[in-house]
Amino acid sequence: MTERIDHTLRNTWTPEGAKAAHLPPHALRWLRSRIGLAEVATPVGPASLHTVADSALPPAALAALVAVVGTAGVLTDRDARLGRSGGLSYVDLMRHRGGGEPAVPDAVVLPADPEQVQRVLEVCAEHGVAVVPFGGGTSVVGGVNPLRGDKASVIALDLLRLDKLVSVDPISHTAVFQAGVRAPDAERLLEAHGFTLGHFPQSFERATLGGFAATRSAGQASAGYGRFEDMVHALRLATPAGELRLGGSPASAAGPDLKQLVIGSEGAFGVITELTLRVREAPTFHHYEGLVLDGWERGALALRALAQQRVLADVTRLSDMDETEASLELAGGWKGKALRAYLRTRGVVAPCLLILGWETTSPRELATRRQAALRALREFSPVRLGRPLGEAWRKGRFGGPRQRDLLLDAGVCVETLETATDWAGLAALRTGVRGALTDSLSTAGSRPVVMCHVSHAYETGASLYFTVLSPRAEQAPLEQWQRAKIAACEAIVNHAGTITHHHAVGVDHAPWLAAEVGELGLDVLRAVKARLDPTGVLNPGKLVSPGERP
Amino acid sequence: MTERIDHTLRNTWTPEGAKAAHLPPHALRWLRSRIGLAEVATPVGPASLHTVADSALPPAALAALVAVVGTAGVLTDRDARLGRSGGLSYVDLMRHRGGGEPAVPDAVVLPADPEQVQRVLEVCAEHGVAVVPFGGGTSVVGGVNPLRGDKASVIALDLLRLDKLVSVDPISHTAVFQAGVRAPDAERLLEAHGFTLGHFPQSFERATLGGFAATRSAGQASAGYGRFEDMVHALRLATPAGELRLGGSPASAAGPDLKQLVIGSEGAFGVITELTLRVREAPTFHHYEGLVLDGWERGALALRALAQQRVLADVTRLSDMDETEASLELAGGWKGKALRAYLRTRGVVAPCLLILGWETTSPRELATRRQAALRALREFSPVRLGRPLGEAWRKGRFGGPRQRDLLLDAGVCVETLETATDWAGLAALRTGVRGALTDSLSTAGSRPVVMCHVSHAYETGASLYFTVLSPRAEQAPLEQWQRAKIAACEAIVNHAGTITHHHAVGVDHAPWLAAEVGELGLDVLRAVKARLDPTGVLNPGKLVSPGERP
Repeated sequence: MTERIDHTLRNTWTPEGAKAAHLPPHALRWLRSRIGLAEVATPVGPASLHTVADSALPPAALAALVAVVGTAGVLTDRDARLGRSGGLSYVDLMRHRGGGEPAVPDAVVLPADPEQVQRVLEVCAEHGVAVVPFGGGTSVVGGVNPLRGDKASVIALDLLRLDKLVSVDPISHTAVFQAGVRAPDAERLLEAHGFTLGHFPQSFERATLGGFAATRSAGQASAGYGRFEDMVHALRLATPAGELRLGGSPASAAGPDLKQLVIGSEGAFGVITELTLRVREAPTFHHYEGLVLDGWERGALALRALAQQRVLADVTRLSDMDETEASLELAGGWKGKALRAYLRTRGVVAPCLLILGWETTSPRELATRRQAALRALREFSPVRLGRPLGEAWRKGRFGGPRQRDLLLDAGVCVETLETATDWAGLAALRTGVRGALTDSLSTAGSRPVVMCHVSHAYETGASLYFTVLSPRAEQAPLEQWQRAKIAACEAIVNHAGTITHHHAVGVDHAPWLAAEVGELGLDVLRAVKARLDPTGVLNPGKLVSPGERP
Repeated sequence: MTERIDHTLRNTWTPEGAKAAHLPPHALRWLRSRIGLAEVATPVGPASLHTVADSALPPAALAALVAVVGTAGVLTDRDARLGRSGGLSYVDLMRHRGGGEPAVPDAVVLPADPEQVQRVLEVCAEHGVAVVPFGGGTSVVGGVNPLRGDKASVIALDLLRLDKLVSVDPISHTAVFQAGVRAPDAERLLEAHGFTLGHFPQSFERATLGGFAATRSAGQASAGYGRFEDMVHALRLATPAGELRLGGSPASAAGPDLKQLVIGSEGAFGVITELTLRVREAPTFHHYEGLVLDGWERGALALRALAQQRVLADVTRLSDMDETEASLELAGGWKGKALRAYLRTRGVVAPCLLILGWETTSPRELATRRQAALRALREFSPVRLGRPLGEAWRKGRFGGPRQRDLLLDAGVCVETLETATDWAGLAALRTGVRGALTDSLSTAGSRPVVMCHVSHAYETGASLYFTVLSPRAEQAPLEQWQRAKIAACEAIVNHAGTITHHHAVGVDHAPWLAAEVGELGLDVLRAVKARLDPTGVLNPGKLVSPGERP
């Protein structure tokens, strides 16, 4: 891989050089009328908008860091620091639209290999400098916000130089990657060997493999390829107390699975530097198609049948009626109208779009698996809409976040959140979270759109992914969303949902972690952190330093 | 379930009331000539063989325990205590044949529910009494040996009263069990609801659900149903520091998966009291068949193809040539001869038996999956031997351990051990371990049989399960085996195998755990233990108190 020293300010979901999303005028008109949105424009402000304090990194620490990574490996300029000033949550993005000042690290440090990461951590522990591991910077929960905790300074430890495919084992179907490799690069590197990871979350275009592991990521094809934690065969974790090397067997009963303690540790226990990942033969046959089920309840029953009969498509994704309506409206005019008319003739009153996608290495496997899925769906009377809708979804699969940039420009409060629970509790959880968001964001003149889909189904339950569109409050827009988020989190906890299915804990969910693992569970995490990071330099304020529930 | 206060001495693999295994005279003759075994008889000695010291439980602790579980819940009689004096490893079993004195707990405590378990732990922590959680007592690694550590007394905390199915959720396909439920009882209880767990390790007839979780068990049908850790939806762990309640979502990114820190913790962090397990619709169609592949290398390639094409049968088990030969010889006379003759006519020079078994809820699924597997096998030219051989294996699937009782009677040193590694390293690992065992156990007049099979195949690698048969040394028979075991463990570590794929760590593997997770990994485990068990009463000497590598 080429070494790219990325100094650019990250303040939108659209990657540099990538095509911006398209939001047709009729779509915006529909949205304005639907949620009661005034004609406003709130573009991203210039970087000069922000006041950035001088770097507080002590000279001795700076010198020690330079001794490890070289002069070019420590950046203290304004742009580099602003570029690692947070992730891509609504709140993060709003800070670039005049919504407040982001926290900015005192330096960006760019180690070149796992050994340099290890030494950087030792330097930071010695000098009392906080360290925020930074990969793709796509956290939507404040996971990479450069908080100082009780330290006087903080660095962003950017892993972009750890961008190598170290080795591929075609016999064992594993590949060793450095942790800073971005997902698209990983796929390109593996393609040369005929393999794929099969991990395609919405953050795919920017996120790194280390980030996937640190946050327990789940991709859109998780039903076929598993969650990221299922792909990790072995890993290396640099910690202030030394290096952990874990895993390497396909399975083991040698005590608790410590890999699973590192996966999801969000930089609070150490920095993942290298990953041995299970890979699979790259698929040569793709088939994506769209179906419609009449009503959310029936749709959920259908998903449950697929999951419990173990015939899920690799991508299995069910939108509720609101999301289906919005997709059709935001996608295009006459097509959506024609489709709705067709569905009415088929007697569908509450259309819920189901996308099914298979990726296989043989047409036979594709046909067999597809037939099994369609057979399981039969009793739920799906209306099959064919491949174009499925292919359209596939082509636009990473477009959702980019579209958010345009919605932000147009004055929309747009954000997502997600949870999961067992099948028996899924309906109540959805109702509870929808209600909490709607209540919190409704005003005299406007009512939000709260859309929901299931993108990850399991034998015992499923995830729920919510997207919220609301007119942005003119006064205190961040607080508007934060109130809604708190209401949603309380609803999740009260309905026995997990506080996060794949976005991780970060800062935003930390106050609710105790509700999930108990105070004693938090204490266990703290005990592990105390052993690996005794001076507490690693990612302050994330995961194990939760405040009170608001 | 009925409450069974089991006072019997556990000293054989054959459960009370169960049919003893059959070992025909010709099989014993073959074995004697094969390994050079003299005609000796070493039956189980009477319980009176053992000197059992009086209970050292302090009267205050006894009174406090009685206050929690009642008088009937604390047993201090000789038989009850001898009955929890260890597991069922060769060394454990030999102690009942004059091979040394077993460690005996000072009392057996029988709490009736999770709350009583919690209070028993608090009493033990307060009085400095060591606690060994005891389920089915089938550990083969010293995991339930009642060691005192630095405490003056030790109790066996037997979970046999926690024998209830608490609830079944037919929507979410989960069932809540108390941890002391034995596997056959769990299957019977679930059968009434149309469900199965699908977990069938060789210890099935005696082992408990809590024990499966505590040891990261893997059953014979793991390719279909997953390892036990894949089935755990939620759990409760009683610890001296309080109760941990973990899990409940089908998947989560709410930090590290703490469930996976409890699974495999072997009673060193706490006592698992309740488990919410994923269940599946009980299969109504079974198909088991036998095939033969010519040579171990070809067999391993065939397994790899099945695993990497994801068409493993639910039970997929490949024996090497030595195990295939021994199975045929130990099974019966003319049938084995006829089979060998037939295989010769088919040109098979190194027969390796492959058992494939499917369990499904529809004939269509059975046919589809079986066809896919047979298609993947075609290039490896299997000789299909039909269903009788497969059904014979299924009927005898729990018979292996019972047969060991008869072999022990006949003066054989018989033990098993297991490991796993990735596909690229599998051949070298097998050769290394076989060589170490053979070298260690060979004498001027005898040479052991070292048999091996793969019973758990994964996309990235597979397990290896070794069974050793050797004439027992007249002098120091325990040391004979311990030397061989040490040699095997060193070979495993040197060939990058895991020290245990499903038998757990216990006492026997503890010295090699550092080779697997590093000293820092052990320190993490110790930090967790220190938080949950600050006075160190839980299962001393297991998992996290390893000695030096011998």
